[in-house]
Amino acid sequence: MSSPYKRLRLSLETPVPSDYEISRSQVPKQITEVAKESGILDSEVEPYGSYKAKVKLDVLDRLSGRKNGKYVLVTGITPTPLGEGKSTTTVGLAQALGAVLGKRVFANVRQPSMGPTFGVKGGAAGGGYSQVIPMDEFNMHLTGDIHAVSMANNLLAAALDTRLFHEATQTNKGLWKRLCPVQKDGSRDIPRGLGPRVKKLGLDKKDPRDWTEEEIGKFVRLDIDPETITWKRVLDLNDRSLREVTINQAPTEKGLLRKTGFDISVASEVMAILALSTSVEDMRERLGRIVVASSKSGEPVTCEDLGCAGALAAIMKDAIKPNLMQTLEGTPVFVHAGPFANISIGASSVLADKIALKLVGTESPEEEPGYVVTEAGFDFTMGGERFLNIKCRNSGLSPDVIIIVATVRALKVHGGGAAVKANQPLAPEYTSENLEMLKKGCANLQKHIQNARQYGVDVIVAINQMTLDTANEHEVIRQAAIEAGAVDAIVSNHWEKGGAGAEDLALGVIKCSHKEYPVQQTRDEKFHYLYSVEGESSIQSKIESIAKKMYNADSVEFSPKALQKLEEYTKQGFTNLPICMAKTQYSLSHDPNWKGVPSGYVFPVKDIKASIGAGYLYALADKIQTIPGLATRCGFMNVELNEKGEIEGLF
Amino acid sequence: MSSPYKRLRLSLETPVPSDYEISRSQVPKQITEVAKESGILDSEVEPYGSYKAKVKLDVLDRLSGRKNGKYVLVTGITPTPLGEGKSTTTVGLAQALGAVLGKRVFANVRQPSMGPTFGVKGGAAGGGYSQVIPMDEFNMHLTGDIHAVSMANNLLAAALDTRLFHEATQTNKGLWKRLCPVQKDGSRDIPRGLGPRVKKLGLDKKDPRDWTEEEIGKFVRLDIDPETITWKRVLDLNDRSLREVTINQAPTEKGLLRKTGFDISVASEVMAILALSTSVEDMRERLGRIVVASSKSGEPVTCEDLGCAGALAAIMKDAIKPNLMQTLEGTPVFVHAGPFANISIGASSVLADKIALKLVGTESPEEEPGYVVTEAGFDFTMGGERFLNIKCRNSGLSPDVIIIVATVRALKVHGGGAAVKANQPLAPEYTSENLEMLKKGCANLQKHIQNARQYGVDVIVAINQMTLDTANEHEVIRQAAIEAGAVDAIVSNHWEKGGAGAEDLALGVIKCSHKEYPVQQTRDEKFHYLYSVEGESSIQSKIESIAKKMYNADSVEFSPKALQKLEEYTKQGFTNLPICMAKTQYSLSHDPNWKGVPSGYVFPVKDIKASIGAGYLYALADKIQTIPGLATRCGFMNVELNEKGEIEGLF
Repeated sequence: MSSPYKRLRLSLETPVPSDYEISRSQVPKQITEVAKESGILDSEVEPYGSYKAKVKLDVLDRLSGRKNGKYVLVTGITPTPLGEGKSTTTVGLAQALGAVLGKRVFANVRQPSMGPTFGVKGGAAGGGYSQVIPMDEFNMHLTGDIHAVSMANNLLAAALDTRLFHEATQTNKGLWKRLCPVQKDGSRDIPRGLGPRVKKLGLDKKDPRDWTEEEIGKFVRLDIDPETITWKRVLDLNDRSLREVTINQAPTEKGLLRKTGFDISVASEVMAILALSTSVEDMRERLGRIVVASSKSGEPVTCEDLGCAGALAAIMKDAIKPNLMQTLEGTPVFVHAGPFANISIGASSVLADKIALKLVGTESPEEEPGYVVTEAGFDFTMGGERFLNIKCRNSGLSPDVIIIVATVRALKVHGGGAAVKANQPLAPEYTSENLEMLKKGCANLQKHIQNARQYGVDVIVAINQMTLDTANEHEVIRQAAIEAGAVDAIVSNHWEKGGAGAEDLALGVIKCSHKEYPVQQTRDEKFHYLYSVEGESSIQSKIESIAKKMYNADSVEFSPKALQKLEEYTKQGFTNLPICMAKTQYSLSHDPNWKGVPSGYVFPVKDIKASIGAGYLYALADKIQTIPGLATRCGFMNVELNEKGEIEGLF
Repeated sequence: MSSPYKRLRLSLETPVPSDYEISRSQVPKQITEVAKESGILDSEVEPYGSYKAKVKLDVLDRLSGRKNGKYVLVTGITPTPLGEGKSTTTVGLAQALGAVLGKRVFANVRQPSMGPTFGVKGGAAGGGYSQVIPMDEFNMHLTGDIHAVSMANNLLAAALDTRLFHEATQTNKGLWKRLCPVQKDGSRDIPRGLGPRVKKLGLDKKDPRDWTEEEIGKFVRLDIDPETITWKRVLDLNDRSLREVTINQAPTEKGLLRKTGFDISVASEVMAILALSTSVEDMRERLGRIVVASSKSGEPVTCEDLGCAGALAAIMKDAIKPNLMQTLEGTPVFVHAGPFANISIGASSVLADKIALKLVGTESPEEEPGYVVTEAGFDFTMGGERFLNIKCRNSGLSPDVIIIVATVRALKVHGGGAAVKANQPLAPEYTSENLEMLKKGCANLQKHIQNARQYGVDVIVAINQMTLDTANEHEVIRQAAIEAGAVDAIVSNHWEKGGAGAEDLALGVIKCSHKEYPVQQTRDEKFHYLYSVEGESSIQSKIESIAKKMYNADSVEFSPKALQKLEEYTKQGFTNLPICMAKTQYSLSHDPNWKGVPSGYVFPVKDIKASIGAGYLYALADKIQTIPGLATRCGFMNVELNEKGEIEGLF
């Protein structure tokens, strides 16, 4: 079979070396070669060094006539803190489809934050023999998109605080004189960025010299209520000291102290906008719609009102182009956007998926479609739900197959096994066969399968093989999966074997996406969302749908604060938006200690926040930490440049 | 004459359009073509998109046998807030040498901060028909070097504050257990990044299990005195609210409040290190030497003590490679590093200069050498002095010619003209001939010329022509310049005419660097520094040398704080370092209102700070603002993406 990609051969070693050693032992292809093999024209590629490139959005126009390829979503069961291998499966499956089976394929993954890179977590490029390479470039800077997100986010913050300062220290007339300076012909100039505000206020037909005092006041004074400011600054680092800070303490700031805080950059709404935008224009509009605070009279104050949406878009001009890299076996990868799974959608970008689906798409029914494999953060019920109800609602796309990654280890935890922690020895139930515990734990997997099937999409369970697993254990999982309605459950060993280890899984995906499994196993329903965003559907009812149908809760309890926010957002007209649920990933419920399938409980909503630019409200079941800390012994303590200038000790 | 560069032709318009319009009207060459024309091998170039590339340091090894080309330093007289056109002259001169006269040439310039880009200042890419293009890419992100500087700086800050937190909340034993975890064989692991600290404490021959309690205490406790912390966080934005902040206000931080602040990224010592490093290894060592605080017993605490110097170097791995761009007429430009002129050296990188001097260098005496034209921030007496005493001392290089850029306008200010301010109409003395005022003001130019000649280098004055200048005025400047010892004074009109406007200046530079001016005009001394850093020379005496010989002060007065710092740095062994003076750029003295050549005054040193990694102490004549603010009407308010996705309104 002739493959579109020159396969990079693996020389498998046992035991499997560190991710970094494997990555460095492979010589990647020049990224221009990967682009060519993927059907991207030279004029559409902007290389960043030898192994990374930006791909222009022009591809979408050129290939608009094509039918999309198959869209495969990789999700997981409720994980342990060690992770169950979704990224590894995503990459391994792409290697199997592309390098082993010769199909056209893209793996679309998120760009990782540099915070955890120097903290405690491993890389996010997959692992073992299923990785995106070069892994150090993947994990650091990439092409600067996160830096652009930070800059855009922080320019808006600086604009906001500076505006508060200027409004506090200048008269209406003074502000007006400065904002609209006199031109040579005596007229007054309105800065382009404030054009939309002038229009919103109905002043656009008038010369600023003809504004009444009241109109001047309306134009120059956003009259922000400092207590309502939701916009924070960001840094792409685990800097716990910045969680809460008091700013404006320099004497130059005249005592206008304000308490605020920093988030990690990937938690910025700008990152969510990057992930959800469908074009440059759409991104520009979303940036303008960002709500940063309310005025003292309760009106939402937007980025557009501050006059800096155009500048934010300019900062993000290149970030919006997906980044091309490759897997360890030479198949193409898009790395694009990385919104924080804890409070955002935790999925890579809509644009990368759209472009990849066209690149592997078909121009005639005789052609065989290729595959775009992409991942949603956390388990199916968090990441998958948001992927379908938020990301797919934005893109208009829907997956052909949903993969749920399960491990024997995590299912045993759900069956009552001891807690599993990073850097600690495993309890005996994890190092020997224990079918009873596993059977009990499979309830968790079954709930995720049933949840996924509610959307009308076929489900395959990928059993991510680990060294101490037994064949009996795999069979237990397989039977439970089929019983719950999965079309198949397939063992995959891509971490140890690369694409070859995921060949069976790839064959299953091909069969499923072409509806070749026996009819009684597959869904004949069409894809549909869990809830409607428009019409009668209130914010409460959407949250209740998710909590009851997905989390198995009996009911939802809204805190007084959440109820107040509900009222506020309803008044401001933000009801027609999907909901992003922010809760622990370690349970189907809101309590990380409740394993398996919790039932008969009340799901609490403590607060509701808004990402109007990104286009969703998010409901918080708990206080979510939006900037992690560093451990006493940190990742950064192992990192060094060697004599060749290469990075060592990254993972 | 055959030029090494394909010349991009200018279509000159009158009046000169905006910088942005000029930049966008030119179609740049592919950066790979510019690289080839410059003698850089394909394997040494890493393109970042079509018009920017990183150049590998390997070039230096390959060309180590070559004799350097000619090194031309562009400086200026004491400027007005409008700027006197040093960057424009640097770029215009390179266009004249390369595109007009067909010589091999590089213009080496700083990367501008994005803060002022969205604030009030114009671009730093030159202007008019002498620019680095594309100017929007030059002014935003470039290849991410400033972002890398910010990340490295802020990782160190996070590491420092987290260490304070961990030391405050853990016992010695607890810290030891976590920092040196047990291995499978029972031994304890020392993180690689703390190896240097183990060595410094003399513990390297011992297993951590054998350390005494005292040794454990020494290893795990940096015992930082929070009052001595000098390391601040940075952002590449004009965010005045962050000038002073209180951190650690989240309940998780247990009340360990600390007052600190943010600087603009280009003020980071990491940026100065990027500018001054001579190799990757040298950068790694300098990063390790950064002093962030003192211990309670008065010992300096370094980045190496915190175990994160390797990680900082990893973050800066690509930033250390110079960035290749081109001028409006297609000659090569290195854009690399941009240390803040207010408190640092305000010059581009040593490595870019070294590489460029080899690229335009010669392999045999018959070959004609090319030219590297580079700029030092502010006037000669600030930027030039630092360039020679700090940058050249680091690189071992010395300039063949010093250019001092002067304008009629600024010299009239020094002759008693009214103050000149941005965005305000000029007083009548600036719009008509005024030879008397100009003659008086030429004293300022003459002092800069005499100052430059103290280093044993020939000086050419470039009269940067402006629309309302008269020939008589130019002649006044020329005579004053020659009288003060300049080898020549040449009118240049590169802003309006591009390289053709700077042809005479270029011919003067060629003549001067080949010692073809009459002997009585040129210097036969060899290049030498103003002061020695080693031996008897105390910190005070170095500061006095600069103040008296350069600034024309009678004496220096050290504040009690400065004296205390002198004592501290002397005790810590930091005496053998050059001095970076931080004072206003609007006067030869410390008082921005004293124009011309102030004399008979006492120069105040209010504080002394240390950049041990970068390798200098800096003496402050005043409080220097290290993070600017945004104006009521800001640059960002004009910026928008047009329907083609191009940035409009940047300058």
